[in-house]
Amino acid sequence: MNKSFASDNHAGIHPALLEAMIDVNQGHCPSYGQDPWSHKLKKLLKQEFGAVDSFLVFNGTAANVLSLQACLKSFESVLCTDVSHLNVDECGAPEKIVGSKLVSVPSQNGKFNLDELESIIFRNGDQHFSQVRALSLTQPTEYGTLYTPDEIKRLRVFCDQHQLYLHMDGARLSNAVAALGCGWKEILKGIDILSFGGAKNGFLLGELVIVFKEGLEKDLKFYRKQSLQLPSKTRFLAAPFLKYFENNLWYEIASHENSMAKRLYEGLKASPQVQMTQPCQVNSVFCILPKEIIKPLKKKFFFYVWNENSFEVRLMTSFDTSKEDVDSFLEELNNLLK
Amino acid sequence: MNKSFASDNHAGIHPALLEAMIDVNQGHCPSYGQDPWSHKLKKLLKQEFGAVDSFLVFNGTAANVLSLQACLKSFESVLCTDVSHLNVDECGAPEKIVGSKLVSVPSQNGKFNLDELESIIFRNGDQHFSQVRALSLTQPTEYGTLYTPDEIKRLRVFCDQHQLYLHMDGARLSNAVAALGCGWKEILKGIDILSFGGAKNGFLLGELVIVFKEGLEKDLKFYRKQSLQLPSKTRFLAAPFLKYFENNLWYEIASHENSMAKRLYEGLKASPQVQMTQPCQVNSVFCILPKEIIKPLKKKFFFYVWNENSFEVRLMTSFDTSKEDVDSFLEELNNLLK
Amino acid sequence: MNKSFASDNHAGIHPALLEAMIDVNQGHCPSYGQDPWSHKLKKLLKQEFGAVDSFLVFNGTAANVLSLQACLKSFESVLCTDVSHLNVDECGAPEKIVGSKLVSVPSQNGKFNLDELESIIFRNGDQHFSQVRALSLTQPTEYGTLYTPDEIKRLRVFCDQHQLYLHMDGARLSNAVAALGCGWKEILKGIDILSFGGAKNGFLLGELVIVFKEGLEKDLKFYRKQSLQLPSKTRFLAAPFLKYFENNLWYEIASHENSMAKRLYEGLKASPQVQMTQPCQVNSVFCILPKEIIKPLKKKFFFYVWNENSFEVRLMTSFDTSKEDVDSFLEELNNLLK
Amino acid sequence: MNKSFASDNHAGIHPALLEAMIDVNQGHCPSYGQDPWSHKLKKLLKQEFGAVDSFLVFNGTAANVLSLQACLKSFESVLCTDVSHLNVDECGAPEKIVGSKLVSVPSQNGKFNLDELESIIFRNGDQHFSQVRALSLTQPTEYGTLYTPDEIKRLRVFCDQHQLYLHMDGARLSNAVAALGCGWKEILKGIDILSFGGAKNGFLLGELVIVFKEGLEKDLKFYRKQSLQLPSKTRFLAAPFLKYFENNLWYEIASHENSMAKRLYEGLKASPQVQMTQPCQVNSVFCILPKEIIKPLKKKFFFYVWNENSFEVRLMTSFDTSKEDVDSFLEELNNLLK
Repeated sequence: MNKSFASDNHAGIHPALLEAMIDVNQGHCPSYGQDPWSHKLKKLLKQEFGAVDSFLVFNGTAANVLSLQACLKSFESVLCTDVSHLNVDECGAPEKIVGSKLVSVPSQNGKFNLDELESIIFRNGDQHFSQVRALSLTQPTEYGTLYTPDEIKRLRVFCDQHQLYLHMDGARLSNAVAALGCGWKEILKGIDILSFGGAKNGFLLGELVIVFKEGLEKDLKFYRKQSLQLPSKTRFLAAPFLKYFENNLWYEIASHENSMAKRLYEGLKASPQVQMTQPCQVNSVFCILPKEIIKPLKKKFFFYVWNENSFEVRLMTSFDTSKEDVDSFLEELNNLLK
Repeated sequence: MNKSFASDNHAGIHPALLEAMIDVNQGHCPSYGQDPWSHKLKKLLKQEFGAVDSFLVFNGTAANVLSLQACLKSFESVLCTDVSHLNVDECGAPEKIVGSKLVSVPSQNGKFNLDELESIIFRNGDQHFSQVRALSLTQPTEYGTLYTPDEIKRLRVFCDQHQLYLHMDGARLSNAVAALGCGWKEILKGIDILSFGGAKNGFLLGELVIVFKEGLEKDLKFYRKQSLQLPSKTRFLAAPFLKYFENNLWYEIASHENSMAKRLYEGLKASPQVQMTQPCQVNSVFCILPKEIIKPLKKKFFFYVWNENSFEVRLMTSFDTSKEDVDSFLEELNNLLK
Repeated sequence: MNKSFASDNHAGIHPALLEAMIDVNQGHCPSYGQDPWSHKLKKLLKQEFGAVDSFLVFNGTAANVLSLQACLKSFESVLCTDVSHLNVDECGAPEKIVGSKLVSVPSQNGKFNLDELESIIFRNGDQHFSQVRALSLTQPTEYGTLYTPDEIKRLRVFCDQHQLYLHMDGARLSNAVAALGCGWKEILKGIDILSFGGAKNGFLLGELVIVFKEGLEKDLKFYRKQSLQLPSKTRFLAAPFLKYFENNLWYEIASHENSMAKRLYEGLKASPQVQMTQPCQVNSVFCILPKEIIKPLKKKFFFYVWNENSFEVRLMTSFDTSKEDVDSFLEELNNLLK
Repeated sequence: MNKSFASDNHAGIHPALLEAMIDVNQGHCPSYGQDPWSHKLKKLLKQEFGAVDSFLVFNGTAANVLSLQACLKSFESVLCTDVSHLNVDECGAPEKIVGSKLVSVPSQNGKFNLDELESIIFRNGDQHFSQVRALSLTQPTEYGTLYTPDEIKRLRVFCDQHQLYLHMDGARLSNAVAALGCGWKEILKGIDILSFGGAKNGFLLGELVIVFKEGLEKDLKFYRKQSLQLPSKTRFLAAPFLKYFENNLWYEIASHENSMAKRLYEGLKASPQVQMTQPCQVNSVFCILPKEIIKPLKKKFFFYVWNENSFEVRLMTSFDTSKEDVDSFLEELNNLLK
């Protein structure tokens, strides 16, 4: 079967990350984060990311919800974009688990814009109104676009004005860092708490809640357990992250994915019948395809129609997407377009 | 380092189960339960267990909480023993996630006894009182003891009298089945919903919520997602379960663990300074050790003191506990006791 | 001090409703809804409203939240307007208590419009997406505007198409009925569950959750208690409602309030410096006042600035607002405008 | 109809408290606690009780749940007796609203005893275990018994040892104070937060959450609103409390109730066929009646069988229970016993 362009979680486990799991499958060691690899990972994240503390969890929904749990009381709310994963793809998990309100804000190319934010009503201290206490941005966004460090800085200023915590949903943060060509600390400047993703970058599973703002880590180990997110055999979650960070494997994976998406983007753009809808900044391509080719094309290469009305589709590349995969896809598309 | 007797989750991944994961790490396939292995597992559980439906989740806390979520509205409560994992080791997860009350009932050797249950007050229809709607038993119990099929039958009768759902926490159910020498369907007779454990039987992770009572499965896919428990790359969770069931691997693992525990039990029992506190029916041994040897013994072989007042300790065997491990432990113990 | 135009809950208790409470203050009777007046009220609401069942609660937030609790599971969501009380004035109570998502929809004069609704995305059966299961409208709206029975009919059709429950927040429903000149059953046609308000129509307190859709009443008595909303001395909540309904007192109060608002509206409209922003259909008037007169005018007659940016103010009349109150207000305003 | 001995909430409103409500039914005033009477009540409670802050709510369940909400995070738990209202008569409200675990402790005459408490397991810092953070006592208890100031002092020491907040459920606290002959500050010494009841002492409704421990008041106004407990026309809740406290009306009511209970107790005790089960310290009497007289006696004077197995009944006196009511009851009982 051909590779899928549906999602980066249709791929399997990156061989090096699988190797890391196999390597630690030796003998007994304490569970629940007390193994040497988990300790080493915490230490590494302190050094490389500037983390106050970090917590392994199972998936991205959990990383997002626990990040909000650290920031919010139930009578407080979070600003997020209308298209954020938090708002439309978590099945109401933040509302149920944290008890908080999500305030969705109209977005542009998946991003907040400051004009929309300036019109937000705060009603600080008004007991009838859920008190806004956090802003959650996605980097890269759900539309594969990027905030520049300068844009994040401006959001940070906005957060400071209103005493908000700043959360970053970084399910694919590595792709953003590789694309921006900056360092971890640079992209994370001003961020209070981060969901850092593994599954979409070649891991079996495993995400991290990484705390930068002193104090937010305080209750997280209890909230993690109470939210069903305490893994037992943590060595198998920690070891792949060590491998991922230690030899720039993350960069290798992310930049490969990004370049495959770029190749795909250029190929699609060349076709006058295809309308590109978003810039290609990381490992996704959004475009409108002629309605009649979608079905036959999907049969050969699986992907998702992102908007059922406009026939905008999303195409994603994975760690194992090859030039040949991209070129076969384009060839098939061009055949269909004839 | 010596093997740990602290918990069966101090062991790693059973080689065959790891192999099953490696085998499916080929190419792309749909995520979120739409892969062929997940489909095959559902089918197998229908056939072998008589399941109406089944749901992969990350860990045992989640399997328990989602089982209760399927059975209870927030104004309804569940009977569990005072020593149940649900009551003392889930950090209040059932209360927070389901919103329900846990009614803890005094236990004997970790088991419900019908006399205690008969004195439970129901106050059916009384709006001031959380309505009892389920009973949760653990098989084998947290003290390594077993309910006979006949005892479960009597609990089922009690549940029918009071219109309660019957949940089984089967974090180590394989050990019970191996010990009782019965079949899956036999041990599950009368059970409405089951938490079936993998992690403590040699899996990396992965547990199942298995539904037997028609109707309880209805909303579970949404509750699973909203409770942060939807895995993406489900092939890697499903494939090891297929391997586990297909060639009686489960029996091989469980009966080995049980026999290692039995060997340990006999060795301990032989010492007059050691007081056995529970029968040895599966893969754990409970006994009271002389206070002064606990510290030096723990240095060599890690284990937990289960009761800080009485110095009752728990010793657990794992899939990779060998006769030599047991014998070394006993030798060390006997040296210390001299 | 002058009367307030800030809110209809700045008024006290209507004398007849207070009288009803005094009248039942005789001897002992059962509590928690088992008194004769509570029984009589249930019966009356069956007859006059066509209610399946009804539940006394303390306040409007509770009536709204319990109505949603009856309709929604935690993984289901409700459509409401962006300006609805539910969305902006309940401090996140629906999210916390029901665990559900609120989907806010842009509004026009406080009302839903069908075009906006047609663009709502449902993703039925998609486990990642909180499933839309209800629509909540406010009658009259938070901007004092009305849905015609025909508009409600169209919303009902929309709800049927998508299998949604239809909830009405009727905190001031009497004002709507008086204004529309229809009957209770006419205005409630197609409604599944209703929050019916007392406090804003001259009651000390007390609101009703009134169920029309068979089945929704099933668990409400337990949810009411568990949501802290079970009153004990229910005769004092039920008796005023009996008085309110029995001799068209409701109509007298509501139509008086409406006519006082109309008088105020006409007076304001006559001034070229005042810009009316909403039609006057019930007992509120919305208009933009010249910024400089707001402060001095508020000193004499308390009212709220509804929009801090545009200086739109809200003026509300109460059961005890007199022509003289209105005329004094207008006189003061006109003096300040000179 | 004869007076009921079923509960002190079967009585109506004390005439003086009703008068207080009628007196404030004049003109307009701000709602949601901004009226002069609410302000005055806060001030009075600071002076007379030593309160840091206080919050009006609708009922006792709410006062209890909000008190716990102030003390606990969702992963923390509260110790309460097995017979506490919190545990058996709130329909699981604390679990649902706060998300916390209740740890029920065996009681003696409705009271905690220190021996039972000493055996409580804390497992501080253990992420698997809901962290005990509060102890809730009821004064007087659900069995009409009293903690002496000295006993409360010893509970306070226990709380200090384990860093627990100490909550008092004072639904009938006035009866305790009248019985003990102490002052408010004396009985409240060491208490961090109090549910203070009105409804059972002659109020229509209205209870207070009274905070003594600096810091616990911080978020309560938001939690109150989000928990559906913000009254609008607060003057009618505050004014009766002012009347209640200002001229020792509370003492008059409570000591009358207590003395009527004492009269009843003595009359019952005189009968050899009646077995007294609890000391009579406040306004309730617990005793075992011969089974055959319960039904005919209940027909004349309504009361509750407290234990369906032992035929222990509870008899409560109210502000309007007269000597004649007590004597008629005893006469009827003695006739039936012949």
